[in-house]
Amino acid sequence: MSQFVNIKKITLEDCKSMDLADPLSSFKSKFHLPEGIVYLDGNSMGAAPKQAFPDIKNVVEEEWANGLIRSWVGADWMSSPVRSGNLLADMLGAKHGEIIVTDTICINLFKLICFALKFNERRKVIVYEACSFPADGYIAQGVSNLLDGYSCRSIPEGEEDYDAYLQDDVAVMVLNQVNYKSAYMRDMKAFTQKARERGVLIIWDLAHSAGAMPVDLNADGVDLAVGCTYKYLNGGPGSPGFVYVNKALHGKSVQPITGWFGHANQFAFEEKYTPSKTLSQFQTGTFSALSYQGLETSLNLWREVDFNLVREKSLKLTDLFIDLMMPVAKKYGLTLITPEDHSVRGSHVSYYREDNGYAIVQALIARGVIGDFRAPGVLRFGFTPLYLSYEDVWQSVEHFKAVLENKEYLQEEHKAFQAVT
Amino acid sequence: MSQFVNIKKITLEDCKSMDLADPLSSFKSKFHLPEGIVYLDGNSMGAAPKQAFPDIKNVVEEEWANGLIRSWVGADWMSSPVRSGNLLADMLGAKHGEIIVTDTICINLFKLICFALKFNERRKVIVYEACSFPADGYIAQGVSNLLDGYSCRSIPEGEEDYDAYLQDDVAVMVLNQVNYKSAYMRDMKAFTQKARERGVLIIWDLAHSAGAMPVDLNADGVDLAVGCTYKYLNGGPGSPGFVYVNKALHGKSVQPITGWFGHANQFAFEEKYTPSKTLSQFQTGTFSALSYQGLETSLNLWREVDFNLVREKSLKLTDLFIDLMMPVAKKYGLTLITPEDHSVRGSHVSYYREDNGYAIVQALIARGVIGDFRAPGVLRFGFTPLYLSYEDVWQSVEHFKAVLENKEYLQEEHKAFQAVT
Repeated sequence: MSQFVNIKKITLEDCKSMDLADPLSSFKSKFHLPEGIVYLDGNSMGAAPKQAFPDIKNVVEEEWANGLIRSWVGADWMSSPVRSGNLLADMLGAKHGEIIVTDTICINLFKLICFALKFNERRKVIVYEACSFPADGYIAQGVSNLLDGYSCRSIPEGEEDYDAYLQDDVAVMVLNQVNYKSAYMRDMKAFTQKARERGVLIIWDLAHSAGAMPVDLNADGVDLAVGCTYKYLNGGPGSPGFVYVNKALHGKSVQPITGWFGHANQFAFEEKYTPSKTLSQFQTGTFSALSYQGLETSLNLWREVDFNLVREKSLKLTDLFIDLMMPVAKKYGLTLITPEDHSVRGSHVSYYREDNGYAIVQALIARGVIGDFRAPGVLRFGFTPLYLSYEDVWQSVEHFKAVLENKEYLQEEHKAFQAVT
Repeated sequence: MSQFVNIKKITLEDCKSMDLADPLSSFKSKFHLPEGIVYLDGNSMGAAPKQAFPDIKNVVEEEWANGLIRSWVGADWMSSPVRSGNLLADMLGAKHGEIIVTDTICINLFKLICFALKFNERRKVIVYEACSFPADGYIAQGVSNLLDGYSCRSIPEGEEDYDAYLQDDVAVMVLNQVNYKSAYMRDMKAFTQKARERGVLIIWDLAHSAGAMPVDLNADGVDLAVGCTYKYLNGGPGSPGFVYVNKALHGKSVQPITGWFGHANQFAFEEKYTPSKTLSQFQTGTFSALSYQGLETSLNLWREVDFNLVREKSLKLTDLFIDLMMPVAKKYGLTLITPEDHSVRGSHVSYYREDNGYAIVQALIARGVIGDFRAPGVLRFGFTPLYLSYEDVWQSVEHFKAVLENKEYLQEEHKAFQAVT
C-alpha cells in the first residue's frame, strides 16, 4: 500500500526533498511549535495557531475588560456558536445552519442520542462500539440508565459484521468515522445508507476525522454527528464541541437539556420553554467567550486549506512513519494496529506492545517526540499535515530507535503512570 | 430600613468620606475598570481581575503553545475543577470535595435534578419558581419532558406561601437564594429544613448570591446547589458553573451525563461506566483550560476577602442607591421592586417601569453607567462591593437624573432592542 515500498531505503535527504515539494508547507509557520519538539499528538490536542495569541488577548484585555457585558452584542459573542458552526459546515460538507458549536462532545452526544430516541420512538436500543473511545459508550449507558425501557448493546471489539447490529429494535447507533486507537476509517456513506434502510439512525463521532481529511456530511447522507475541536481543528485546550443535524431532521425532535440559549425567543424571558426551530435548540447556557474565540481563530485559518492536499499529505506522512518504523517495530515487538490500506486509514498510527508501552512513550517525550499512550497497550502517534514535515517524521523514528536500542524506557522516571488526556 | 434615612440630604462629600473609610477599598485596584464607566452590571458579568491578563496569557502562550498536551499533567489542568471547587467550598461554607467546577449552570442543574429524582424516586414532580431566571424552569421542563411519568409544577410569580408547594408528590424543588429580578433573598436554612421534613430535596440556585454575600451551605443544611461564576465571582465571560452536593448524598445517586471525566478510573479506558465515588462524577468531558484559569485567578483573589465586610458594604451601596434614587423614581414613574428590608435583600436593585425601560438603560449606558434590562419592564443595577465605590453610586444617580430629565431615552438609537445576557 505504501507509496515508499519501492524505495530501497528512504534517506533524510528524501524527506527534505519531500518537504521542499510540499504544497502545505507554508502552514507550519502559522503555528507556534516549541523548539526541539516533534509533536505527534495533535490528534489529541492541536498546536496553537499564532493568531490565537493576539485574538485571545483581545477577548480578555479589550472585550471582557473594557467592553464588559456590552461585548455579548458589541463584540458579537452571541453569534459565535453559529459563526463557527457555519465555518465548520463549509469544511465538513454541510449547509450553513446544520452545524452549531456548543458545550462538549460528551454533552452533545447525550443530547443527540436523546434527540434520536425521541425521533425513532418505537425502538428502544442504543448501539455503541466497544472499541470506541470509551466516553461514547459511557454516554450511551448514561442515557439508557436514565430512561425507562431503554438499553444499550455494544459491538464487541474485533467484530467485523456491523450490519448484524442494524436490528429491528435498534433506534440509534453511535459510530466513529475514525477509531481513536487503530485509526480504522469506516465508510460513512455506505453504512449510513444501509442503516437508513433498516430504520436505524447513526450518530457519527468525528473526533478523529474532522480536520484530518475531507469529510462530506451532506454527500454521505449523514443525519447526525458530533465532534470536538481541540484535536485536528486546533481550537485550544478543551475548546467546545459541535453538533451536526441534517436539515431534514430540524424541528422533528427536541434535545432535552433545554437551556435559555436554546429557546425560540431567548430574551423574551417567557416561563414556558419553546424550542428554537434552528439548530440553536442544541445550545444550552452561557458559554466561554475565550474558548470560543480560540476555535474561531483556528477555523479562520482552516478556510484557506484544501482538504484534498491534507488527505494526500496525511497518507504520505503515515506511510513514511510506518515504513521507517517497520524494521524497528519488528525488532522490538511493536505490532502495527493501524490499517496499511489507505482506504480505511485515518491520520494516526498506533502500535500495540504487551509491556512497557507507557514507559516507551514517556522516554520518547523526554527526547522531545510527543505521542501518547492508550491503555492497555497502545502507543499512538498523530500526523497533522498542517504543521508536520517529512523531516519531523524522520527525526521521530530516529528517536524511537534510540529509545528502544538504549532501553531508555527502563529509566525509573518514565515508568510511573500519569494520566494524560 | 436604610442606614441613611436620617440624613437629610446625602452629598457627594458624604460619599467620598464613606469611600475613605471603606475597608474593602483596596480591592478596586485589583480590577481593570475602563475609564469613565460606572459598572452596575457585575451581577450579570463581573469585571476582569488584572491578574487574569498574565494568567490567561500564560495558559495560551506557554501552557498550550509550549506545553501542548503535556500541560494536562505538567500545568495540572486536570485538577482545576477540584482545585477551584475547593476554593469555592472555602468561600461558601462547604467542605473540600463538596463543590466541583464543571460545565455550565444550566447543564449542572439538569444533572442535579436527575440526580435528585433518582434519589427521591417515589415522587414524580419537579417544582420551580415562575419568577426565577427562566433557564431554571426550562431545564426542569426539559427533564420532565424527557422522563416518563414526571411533571413540573411552577410556583406562580407573587406567591408567598412556598410551604404549600412541599407536597407529597414533590421530589425536588429548584429555588433561588436571590431572585434575579427583584433581588429578594430567601431564607435558605429555614426552608431547607422545612423541605427535608416533608421529604422534598431543594436545589438552591446561587447565581445571584455566591460572591455577593456570606453563603454558608453546611451551616444552612443545604443538600444540593448550583451556581455560575461569571457574575459576582468574576471568572470571565461564560466561565464554568459549579455543583455542590452535601457529603451525606455522595454515592447515593448518579447524574446521567456520564462522561469519561466522571468515571471512577478515567484512564483505564474500561468499556463499562463506573461512576466516581467523589464529586468528580459530575464532571463530563474535556474542559476549557483557558476558561477555568480565568476562574481560578479570580477565586485566588477572593481568598483574601471577608464576606461580612462584603455584605456590610453591599447593603450600604444598595441603601445609598435606593435613597438617592427615591425622588427620581417617584418623579419619573419607576417602582422599586427590590425589598428595602435588609434581611431579604440581595446585592442588586431593580425598578419596574411600564414603558421605555429598555431605552432608559441604553441611554444610561451611553453615559457610561452600565446596568441592564430584563423583559418586560425591569431596570436592574448590580452592586459589587469589591470594585464599586460610594462615589460611583452618586455618579450613577446623577446620570440617571439627567437621562430622565432630558428624556435622553427618546433618542432613536436607544430604542431598538438588542439582546444582552
